[in-house]
Amino acid sequence: MPSVSVCFSPILFPLFKNDDAVVVVVDVLRATSAIVTGFDHGVNVMVAVAGIEETLSYKDKGYLVAGERNGEMQEGFDFGNSPFSYKPEVVKGRNVAISTTNGTQAVVAAKDSHKLFIGAFLNISALCKRILNENRDVIVLCAGWKNKFNLEDTLFAGALAEKLAGNGYLLNCDSALAAIELWKNAKPDVNAFLATSSHRNRLKHLDLEADIKYCLTLDLCKSVPELEAGVLVWKD
Amino acid sequence: MPSVSVCFSPILFPLFKNDDAVVVVVDVLRATSAIVTGFDHGVNVMVAVAGIEETLSYKDKGYLVAGERNGEMQEGFDFGNSPFSYKPEVVKGRNVAISTTNGTQAVVAAKDSHKLFIGAFLNISALCKRILNENRDVIVLCAGWKNKFNLEDTLFAGALAEKLAGNGYLLNCDSALAAIELWKNAKPDVNAFLATSSHRNRLKHLDLEADIKYCLTLDLCKSVPELEAGVLVWKD
Repeated sequence: MPSVSVCFSPILFPLFKNDDAVVVVVDVLRATSAIVTGFDHGVNVMVAVAGIEETLSYKDKGYLVAGERNGEMQEGFDFGNSPFSYKPEVVKGRNVAISTTNGTQAVVAAKDSHKLFIGAFLNISALCKRILNENRDVIVLCAGWKNKFNLEDTLFAGALAEKLAGNGYLLNCDSALAAIELWKNAKPDVNAFLATSSHRNRLKHLDLEADIKYCLTLDLCKSVPELEAGVLVWKD
Repeated sequence: MPSVSVCFSPILFPLFKNDDAVVVVVDVLRATSAIVTGFDHGVNVMVAVAGIEETLSYKDKGYLVAGERNGEMQEGFDFGNSPFSYKPEVVKGRNVAISTTNGTQAVVAAKDSHKLFIGAFLNISALCKRILNENRDVIVLCAGWKNKFNLEDTLFAGALAEKLAGNGYLLNCDSALAAIELWKNAKPDVNAFLATSSHRNRLKHLDLEADIKYCLTLDLCKSVPELEAGVLVWKD
């Protein structure tokens, strides 16, 4: 059977080297939640870009440009990192370049994987179904916060690993076991569980409670964005 | 109040840079458990050495040399990584050079810290008392397994962080919150909680159940080894 591993930081990702694996990149608050929402609302393609300047250069190519640093929108961008910015009337049929503090950096770190999917609580069931079709080892790459461990991405990793383990996937690494254990504690009330987490409190100062609540909701979306020839697409 | 942070891998340690902090290095299975046992049994000083060859060179200086790679003793060494090798009749009054897969690498990574203590379940209460006397920020550096997250070091970190939080220390990072959460789940029966963990299973193949049981026992030891001028000492 294939296995599922969980990587808590992009810095640790080289330790999980597995050229045949499917990599799921997650940045629950809020990059991958925004990307999934974008595709559900009709985005055509997205590019995940590491640098601010490079992102802005996509404006000349007709892209919408989205991004934040430390939770706040940057000058010259069309919108920041809130999933609520990705309204159907704004994004339908458009291409979007996105750069965020953590999430897009993780996409860039894993860009050479056999297959790279974008994961969030919003699309977890659709994602799980898509992964099961692949029948390969899975690495859940948590974007974390500036390469540090974070709780919300770990909970997502635990939720996904639990689903995959229920389908017979092996749990070979302690981080997968820990993520599942934490998810079991959290799932009766994820919002309450995260009440003392660091990034939630970081966002609280930015008055983003509605964003947080939305990003912690399961299965509102059905898109499973994947990386193909350097751009994110949803192959429905 | 001072804070307590938990670092899950020596690779992530530079992200926690804090020149004023006390660093606690832990490698429950088995390096730091062995070191603590050694001092309780009368070791004079210990040096933690990264390389095998460098460790062997200490023989010429009259040191006992101890070490393992992947859980197994290396040729030319006096003993491996089992705490049971550190018998009083063998180690009393002796100097020991030690090199292990993970634990001593973590000591080397944190050697420039303001203060570095050796932690294990075996000395957790004595260690906590010693830390409280310092009244500084604390970073628990988990040795992990070849730089990957591991459960047993994380549980120790959670146990220590819980004690320190009970004394008013702040929990600033998600990894400390996660470690405490995991410890709460584990503490009714740590041995059972770790039954599926990766390193435990690695050691099981080496028939080390007695070592594991010993290393998971709280407060059998009273030594709190610390790094001073490059060598580990116990200042009783």
